Amino acid sequence: MCASIAAMNPADLGLPVDVPSTALFTDHYELTMLQAALANGTADRRSVFEVFTRRLPEGRRYGVVAGTGRVLDAVENFRFDSAVLEFLRERAVVDMRTLDWLASYRFSGDIWGYPEGEVYFPGSPILRVEGSFAECVLLETVILSILNHDSAIAAAASRMSSAAGDRPLIEMGARRTHELAAVASARAAYVGGFASTSDLAAGFRYGIPTVGTSAHAFTLVHDSERDAFTAQVASLGRGTTLLVDTYDVAEAVRTAVEVAGTDLGAVRIDSGDLLLVAHRVRQQLDELGATSTKIVVTSDLDEYAIASLAAAPVDAYGVGTQLVTGSGHPTCSMVYKLVARATSADPKAALAPVAKKSTGGKTSIGGRKWAARRRDADGVAEAEVVGVGPVPAALADHQLLTHLVKAGEVVAREPLEAARDRHRAARAALPLSATQLSRGEAVIPTEYV
Amino acid sequence: MCASIAAMNPADLGLPVDVPSTALFTDHYELTMLQAALANGTADRRSVFEVFTRRLPEGRRYGVVAGTGRVLDAVENFRFDSAVLEFLRERAVVDMRTLDWLASYRFSGDIWGYPEGEVYFPGSPILRVEGSFAECVLLETVILSILNHDSAIAAAASRMSSAAGDRPLIEMGARRTHELAAVASARAAYVGGFASTSDLAAGFRYGIPTVGTSAHAFTLVHDSERDAFTAQVASLGRGTTLLVDTYDVAEAVRTAVEVAGTDLGAVRIDSGDLLLVAHRVRQQLDELGATSTKIVVTSDLDEYAIASLAAAPVDAYGVGTQLVTGSGHPTCSMVYKLVARATSADPKAALAPVAKKSTGGKTSIGGRKWAARRRDADGVAEAEVVGVGPVPAALADHQLLTHLVKAGEVVAREPLEAARDRHRAARAALPLSATQLSRGEAVIPTEYV
Repeated sequence: MCASIAAMNPADLGLPVDVPSTALFTDHYELTMLQAALANGTADRRSVFEVFTRRLPEGRRYGVVAGTGRVLDAVENFRFDSAVLEFLRERAVVDMRTLDWLASYRFSGDIWGYPEGEVYFPGSPILRVEGSFAECVLLETVILSILNHDSAIAAAASRMSSAAGDRPLIEMGARRTHELAAVASARAAYVGGFASTSDLAAGFRYGIPTVGTSAHAFTLVHDSERDAFTAQVASLGRGTTLLVDTYDVAEAVRTAVEVAGTDLGAVRIDSGDLLLVAHRVRQQLDELGATSTKIVVTSDLDEYAIASLAAAPVDAYGVGTQLVTGSGHPTCSMVYKLVARATSADPKAALAPVAKKSTGGKTSIGGRKWAARRRDADGVAEAEVVGVGPVPAALADHQLLTHLVKAGEVVAREPLEAARDRHRAARAALPLSATQLSRGEAVIPTEYV
Repeated sequence: MCASIAAMNPADLGLPVDVPSTALFTDHYELTMLQAALANGTADRRSVFEVFTRRLPEGRRYGVVAGTGRVLDAVENFRFDSAVLEFLRERAVVDMRTLDWLASYRFSGDIWGYPEGEVYFPGSPILRVEGSFAECVLLETVILSILNHDSAIAAAASRMSSAAGDRPLIEMGARRTHELAAVASARAAYVGGFASTSDLAAGFRYGIPTVGTSAHAFTLVHDSERDAFTAQVASLGRGTTLLVDTYDVAEAVRTAVEVAGTDLGAVRIDSGDLLLVAHRVRQQLDELGATSTKIVVTSDLDEYAIASLAAAPVDAYGVGTQLVTGSGHPTCSMVYKLVARATSADPKAALAPVAKKSTGGKTSIGGRKWAARRRDADGVAEAEVVGVGPVPAALADHQLLTHLVKAGEVVAREPLEAARDRHRAARAALPLSATQLSRGEAVIPTEYV
């Protein structure tokens, strides 16, 4: 399903939210810098920008690249239509010459990047954008918005999915975040290992499986819990999931099995001491003969709560708030930095490395970089190697940057499943301590050569 | 400008992101509950849902209602078009009867709410949605998405704006959050007291003033800092803001004044010990005769950092990450609960209060509520009073809920400035300790009568 959708042109998808242009998801200063650079000719200097982060969120062992597919859509749709140009003119954001230039804007450069789902570490050059200064500088804001958001969600999802082991995770955080951030969150969670989402827009847009049970309101609108369960089973079948904590859990479980029979699909517990309640409910279900009825738990779960329920008779976890807020780290600290540029506007001019040199730990390393993950004899990752210049022969086959956009054309679309599978494999190739939930340093060091 | 934009139909605004329908920003279970309720007739029971929060984020003294205007847009645009219906049919989310019902969906009920910018406390009934169970239950997810996100951002913005005093705050967090959450964040920040945004889409969509300076990349693409400053001043005028921390700050300030003269608009400092550097830069600017050149500081500011710079010679603050992530609290814990419903589908049937009664502190209070803010003799708020039944005469003029949607028609559109002004007034009417940054309890108690 995902495969067929990914093969389509995004414009055909009938988005619930149509994105005719991503050009205004841009900071004001990108356009004023463009204006000044067009005026003195530096706009045409060949430039290399890189996206990287100086550190992982405190205590995290690895990061997860997510949003790459959305970046490709955003770059393709980065066009200034007449309404946008009129807005910029009316507000006097930039001059007429710049408006003329923007009217025909279309990214014609190259983008390389870590493929979606790959893991990353401090200094990993996750994305590299090459082209004229003018065409590259404009993409900064939208690229960072997407990668910083989606990667933060995917990192939380990855920790939760390793804590959950083989039990499926349901993403249900739409109500806790911006309505469109919710759609991107469901997508990033899927990359990070979640099985499904409650968000219908994410199902529509990305083909992610959607699931749902029922809310307390459904029980409360009925005259009794029995009436509510009867109505739900009658309409949705015995395979449905009944919510059993509106009044008394033990009574609800008894009623549920009376109404649906012993082949009731599942019950959901959304409050209380989940460890204790899950054990009691499992025992009660078994005693009632509903031995195959599953137990779904929800209620402010995070990776720690999920891990603490490993020994509980729980069949699936629904995760909301903590997923869409990145489990304490709702954004990454990725930056988009000019690392090299031509010494003149001549297209044949050599590239010179550049870097900010100032106080406050914000120094970056100049030069167009490659990256590779060195592995030990058992295939376990042992270092993230980042370099400028020729790639050592031993690392040539372990390079991480792939060509995503070639002379303005997207060349690396893939189904979301591919990113999800890649993430599982990349995480599995890290040292075992990567999935420890306790705080620590990046699980492998970054080496600069 | 905001006033004229708000007076237009949102459909005319030429959104950078067009939202033809908000119907899929909805959890799967809202639709399956609808199906079951349509089948047994409870769908038609008159119902009252309320949005409230059980607690403020830890340590916070008050909350800020934001997103109300976006909720009104979302309710108006909550329609199931053919592409959406086809998706629901193909995925077998709901049955044909439910699809038919959805095809003609249009909210026809009433919505009351705290007006945007108003402050709130635990238990405040921020929004009340009344209509049939079917039409109200569907709106849960999108309403909570908007209010939980936007109110979290506005609350952070409010704390930052009270810390900043009369100095303007610039919202510049777009790159740190989802590209559309960024637009909503700029809007919420404006309600909370920010003066402007870097986000062009927020300027386009909501008429918020946009501003910008330049990035390190602009300096680095030039052969020297002097070349970069010269280009920027030539193109954007002496009133521009020059970024002075790419190499050496003192040298950059000297070059800046040499290039732009003493009527240079401003310099921006984005790294280092801002308190120390601002003092040095102010002294240097003054010595160079640039006494009216302003100093803008940016670099991971939050309300505490802003407060700590109160005595520094700083003229404006640019805030990014901490604003768009709610300064540690990226979401509110607002819920949407059925609090009363008719005892039958008869439109004249009496409303009965309902409430979940279970473990885990998730109990809510049944009944259709009013709310008023009681003030002392000096006009200072002293309690949030929430009740069911008749409003005491002494509180009748201090009620907080206003009519937003009447029989499906939005009746309370207003310019964003109105929400911004209301917030300033509402915060000013709280006890002085409301704006203390230190952790504490809600600044006034919530009383239930």
